[in-house]
Amino acid sequence: MDKIKVGLIGAGGYGGCGAIELLQNHPHAEITALIDTQEVGKPVSDLYPHLTGFCDLPLTDPADPDCPRDFHVVFFATPDGVGQKEAGSWLEKGVKVIDYSGDFRFNDPETYQGYAKRIGRSAGHASPELLPRSVYGLPELHREAIQHTDLVGNPGCFAVACNLGLAPAVRSGLIDPGSIICDAKTGVSGGGKTPAPGFHYPARYDSMNAYKISGHQHVYEIERQLSLLAGEDIRITFTPHVVPLCRGILVTSYAPLNDGQNIKTVEEAYRDFYAGDTFVRVFGPDKPQASVNVRGSNFCNISINIDDRTGRLIVVSLIDNLVKGQAGSAVQNMNIMFGLDETEGLLHPGMYP
Amino acid sequence: MDKIKVGLIGAGGYGGCGAIELLQNHPHAEITALIDTQEVGKPVSDLYPHLTGFCDLPLTDPADPDCPRDFHVVFFATPDGVGQKEAGSWLEKGVKVIDYSGDFRFNDPETYQGYAKRIGRSAGHASPELLPRSVYGLPELHREAIQHTDLVGNPGCFAVACNLGLAPAVRSGLIDPGSIICDAKTGVSGGGKTPAPGFHYPARYDSMNAYKISGHQHVYEIERQLSLLAGEDIRITFTPHVVPLCRGILVTSYAPLNDGQNIKTVEEAYRDFYAGDTFVRVFGPDKPQASVNVRGSNFCNISINIDDRTGRLIVVSLIDNLVKGQAGSAVQNMNIMFGLDETEGLLHPGMYP
Amino acid sequence: MDKIKVGLIGAGGYGGCGAIELLQNHPHAEITALIDTQEVGKPVSDLYPHLTGFCDLPLTDPADPDCPRDFHVVFFATPDGVGQKEAGSWLEKGVKVIDYSGDFRFNDPETYQGYAKRIGRSAGHASPELLPRSVYGLPELHREAIQHTDLVGNPGCFAVACNLGLAPAVRSGLIDPGSIICDAKTGVSGGGKTPAPGFHYPARYDSMNAYKISGHQHVYEIERQLSLLAGEDIRITFTPHVVPLCRGILVTSYAPLNDGQNIKTVEEAYRDFYAGDTFVRVFGPDKPQASVNVRGSNFCNISINIDDRTGRLIVVSLIDNLVKGQAGSAVQNMNIMFGLDETEGLLHPGMYP
Amino acid sequence: MDKIKVGLIGAGGYGGCGAIELLQNHPHAEITALIDTQEVGKPVSDLYPHLTGFCDLPLTDPADPDCPRDFHVVFFATPDGVGQKEAGSWLEKGVKVIDYSGDFRFNDPETYQGYAKRIGRSAGHASPELLPRSVYGLPELHREAIQHTDLVGNPGCFAVACNLGLAPAVRSGLIDPGSIICDAKTGVSGGGKTPAPGFHYPARYDSMNAYKISGHQHVYEIERQLSLLAGEDIRITFTPHVVPLCRGILVTSYAPLNDGQNIKTVEEAYRDFYAGDTFVRVFGPDKPQASVNVRGSNFCNISINIDDRTGRLIVVSLIDNLVKGQAGSAVQNMNIMFGLDETEGLLHPGMYP
Repeated sequence: MDKIKVGLIGAGGYGGCGAIELLQNHPHAEITALIDTQEVGKPVSDLYPHLTGFCDLPLTDPADPDCPRDFHVVFFATPDGVGQKEAGSWLEKGVKVIDYSGDFRFNDPETYQGYAKRIGRSAGHASPELLPRSVYGLPELHREAIQHTDLVGNPGCFAVACNLGLAPAVRSGLIDPGSIICDAKTGVSGGGKTPAPGFHYPARYDSMNAYKISGHQHVYEIERQLSLLAGEDIRITFTPHVVPLCRGILVTSYAPLNDGQNIKTVEEAYRDFYAGDTFVRVFGPDKPQASVNVRGSNFCNISINIDDRTGRLIVVSLIDNLVKGQAGSAVQNMNIMFGLDETEGLLHPGMYP
Repeated sequence: MDKIKVGLIGAGGYGGCGAIELLQNHPHAEITALIDTQEVGKPVSDLYPHLTGFCDLPLTDPADPDCPRDFHVVFFATPDGVGQKEAGSWLEKGVKVIDYSGDFRFNDPETYQGYAKRIGRSAGHASPELLPRSVYGLPELHREAIQHTDLVGNPGCFAVACNLGLAPAVRSGLIDPGSIICDAKTGVSGGGKTPAPGFHYPARYDSMNAYKISGHQHVYEIERQLSLLAGEDIRITFTPHVVPLCRGILVTSYAPLNDGQNIKTVEEAYRDFYAGDTFVRVFGPDKPQASVNVRGSNFCNISINIDDRTGRLIVVSLIDNLVKGQAGSAVQNMNIMFGLDETEGLLHPGMYP
Repeated sequence: MDKIKVGLIGAGGYGGCGAIELLQNHPHAEITALIDTQEVGKPVSDLYPHLTGFCDLPLTDPADPDCPRDFHVVFFATPDGVGQKEAGSWLEKGVKVIDYSGDFRFNDPETYQGYAKRIGRSAGHASPELLPRSVYGLPELHREAIQHTDLVGNPGCFAVACNLGLAPAVRSGLIDPGSIICDAKTGVSGGGKTPAPGFHYPARYDSMNAYKISGHQHVYEIERQLSLLAGEDIRITFTPHVVPLCRGILVTSYAPLNDGQNIKTVEEAYRDFYAGDTFVRVFGPDKPQASVNVRGSNFCNISINIDDRTGRLIVVSLIDNLVKGQAGSAVQNMNIMFGLDETEGLLHPGMYP
Repeated sequence: MDKIKVGLIGAGGYGGCGAIELLQNHPHAEITALIDTQEVGKPVSDLYPHLTGFCDLPLTDPADPDCPRDFHVVFFATPDGVGQKEAGSWLEKGVKVIDYSGDFRFNDPETYQGYAKRIGRSAGHASPELLPRSVYGLPELHREAIQHTDLVGNPGCFAVACNLGLAPAVRSGLIDPGSIICDAKTGVSGGGKTPAPGFHYPARYDSMNAYKISGHQHVYEIERQLSLLAGEDIRITFTPHVVPLCRGILVTSYAPLNDGQNIKTVEEAYRDFYAGDTFVRVFGPDKPQASVNVRGSNFCNISINIDDRTGRLIVVSLIDNLVKGQAGSAVQNMNIMFGLDETEGLLHPGMYP
């Protein structure tokens, strides 16, 4: 089989860098163009010197008439608002699309609207007609639909950890879905490559904080996915925090356990749910997990616990925000969309320490 | 007035170091002996070279007959189990006692027992007769009792942040006290000075984890203090996490808001509650707080938020675990016990960045 | 005595913050205005929340007619080029001036020119007539002159560590001054408060690099001071590196030892040289020093070593770049200029860990 | 071809972990046993959970009669003193040996003796008869000899960076080899997996220090390799420092440039010298390098600079201490010893950020 030709749009950010790291080593795919509107003309290895000799393609302006266009798939590693304007023209040409932003994480304009409002986009979706055909790119929940679509909305990093951590409990009715709290902690790389006061080393190295309390936009896709699993509308409390590390999301989810449930039934339900999922590992209370266990890899580790004194389920779910939370999920989705084994190019343990 | 003579027992650990930093600068107190069973004979400035010229007292073995004993107060900066054995003999001599451990945080043997079991102490309390006279050393809750006692149980670091974060809400009936969740994040210095695999730099610099899920011993003193405030028995869910920074505790507390409460009534209740407390600062949702805002100081910053979508109060409380969470509270308690202004020696902003 | 009224120009940066931390606690000085052209009108405690309650003065635009002007001294915590334009008008009014930048570190326009060229300033000095009256603000070398001037050029952070590390050796002829190499390592706070790609947490937390190799501007003031001490023109090799910590400069200086010198003669010479200097501590090879030993304090620790195999002196000098390397030196200079004990407000051990 | 069977002795440390990460992905080699005297019986993925599913082999006691022995090669990822006792018996059975320690970095007992004394081993080498047959495992200097030996002494991490940084200059007579200074900075992982006071997170996160000043044992193998290249006895000054990051060594080497040399001749000499070396990248002064550029990879980046003012060559050489400085070099050596392309299993860019 010929290699899948990948066009990477928004290649200069961390999301682009992550995709390059994974795809330069993929047996059945190759990056054929790096597209960006900044740093145009520079080899990407000037921006990310560790790529020297592995990927030295230059960044090409999308408006450049010589910009390559013969891709099998494009990755939009771009902020909200870019993919929704451009995806259509690629799809028309038969090119599959995977978008990192929230542009295609919702299937109808109304649902998208709540999310859009939260991130300060007042205008409606630029391509509402594409929404019904888009699929939420979390293979553990939507593998089959991903297989049959050509348009995937890659999930938000926090949402990956929250959804994977809670899906079995919600699906199997282990908990009261009306009282879920997700307390999320993320490393700084989740904020991207652009310097900002809160990510300045001296301001961050010995500081942590909650932010967007009760107002983070990822709550919409978490609620949507959990609602689909529950068969009813669910609202959750979601609080993100930034802590001074680079890679990693740890979400501690709390919910009242339903009668008759215990650590055994819960662990069994989780193991059943993820039985066919290479990239999810389930652990009981005896094996607490640290974020470094998934650092640099596409795995999500889930640790199941019960607070007997209050009857609550406490699930700790951990991912690398830049891999399973972003580029790794994108490659996993690409594998599925092209009928490959979904683990191609992704079976790495990461790096320790 | 003559200076208060302080004997510091367990001087070689971080808790001792913190007390020395504060007391070497205290206008009305002075350390007259450093007592420890390790590194005996060494000047403390060999262990903590930044103290060179500020405090060069040697560590003295408590069994040494020349060990000074003419103190006005002793600080037990020791682990659980030490103070309960030795406090009595100091009290008999008219020396006041402030104990950092859990030995004197509970007023009766039964309550202590739950705590003791959790930390793996099967034997009963060594001096049960002292418990009724001990006071829980959180001045914002027990200032008057501290003033009149000679035996203070300095609170646990997590407990300081949880209790201060929730006290006004529980006291004023703003929330349903039966559904409280405290999600706590601590810096690594909370684990003390002794090297351990989980605090080894390479293992920790890019990793975070929950630990003792549903099993941390501080939950007992949090529940006890909140129960006293509520006038009813309260059980909470408390989950501690370690994140890779040195100083700081951030606790995110969640509870369902009672009918009729809103951000205005809540903020007012908090401001009222802490009106006379120099070391507690209350902030509304417009001024989110980071742990670095209290780093190196004796302050507790509290940020009040409401999740309108789910009707939950979300309180973020922040302290420096080594100051307000330990040595700072001890000095504050000492000030009160000796009739000084409770802020003496503690009015420092900390250091930034 | 009335308190010294300090006007702090460029108050919003780390250099301003450091001065506020020190001066809010100074027994004989007080900040009476914070002047800056950015964030005008905001209380400084909005920028640096740890200052809340300690200093809540607003930032005032220097062009504002209501901007206070009745100071005894102004600190220019500003970049190169600001102080040289404005110092004159303050001096005329009898206000003393301490400038953080390189504007007044050289006594004649020619010497300044080399420095100016290196930092990309092609224009000459704006107030050449002031240069002869300025004094290089390193009290350990120029205490008496500082006492008698009203214009001090506060030294560069690297230069403090290099000059203090080498002064005794050069002055006493212990080494060949023609072969000096200074290998400097600095924490990230030396780069200031403004976010930049190289100081972005994810880019920096696990990375170190040399920069401005053979081209850093501080080399000029190091060479000038060492030349004055040697009585001959000295050129050195100076290489700065950034490493991922916040506060601290460690300089490792190398030079061939002259005949007849050994660790004993060297240590003696160093102890003699710094006999009257509270803020310099000299250590022999048996007491290696870490940067944390001076973190948060105004001390410079110097560790003396000899490589017997190659006959080289190896001096490790350590400072906190934001204290002895900046605001601390400024306050020390102020104390001297006003006839106070030079240690006023500066005798703190810093904070550990 | 059948896969090379690798026995990994001392598998539980960072050196073992690094070898597992590389070999689990090697197309022509496989680990068939993990041997250690600690944590015996545990799957290595209990010690290093990120390896779960990639390598779950248990640690086997070498004294266990069931411990596998049918290897093609053994890696001694053990401290000094282990390999020299056991290598002989493996070699006799036709098993090749790669030793991480200093046991086989010198070819005769006398040269070894200097090194041994430095690390506090008073006894002589346990197998002096093996020394002449051992090869110093730096392929860029000894590729051919490595190809023909069955016993490789893997180089010390600092020595890799120093030797690669200076080899072309010494070999081509660009510098005065009598005045070389190597100022080395290492991340904390170089200290290994065992917790120690200096590597405890709170003690390390904001601190740096020089150590073993003029006394680090790696100086012997650096001097030996440079002496071989120069054809004369060379002594250098070598000062190691620990800085608070995890992975990376940066060595800044200084030496007086010989007459007639300039940046052009030097850069050319370096490019020529490393023309056939995949894992060495040479950069001019316009492309300064950071340690993160080689983090997680087997590359050594070398940056060439000249200080025109003093006529010194300044070379900055950077490696990942755990890859090119340890496990990566070992695998590279294995590849060469078995006639494979030396890059097999090693062509990864590492991970960023």
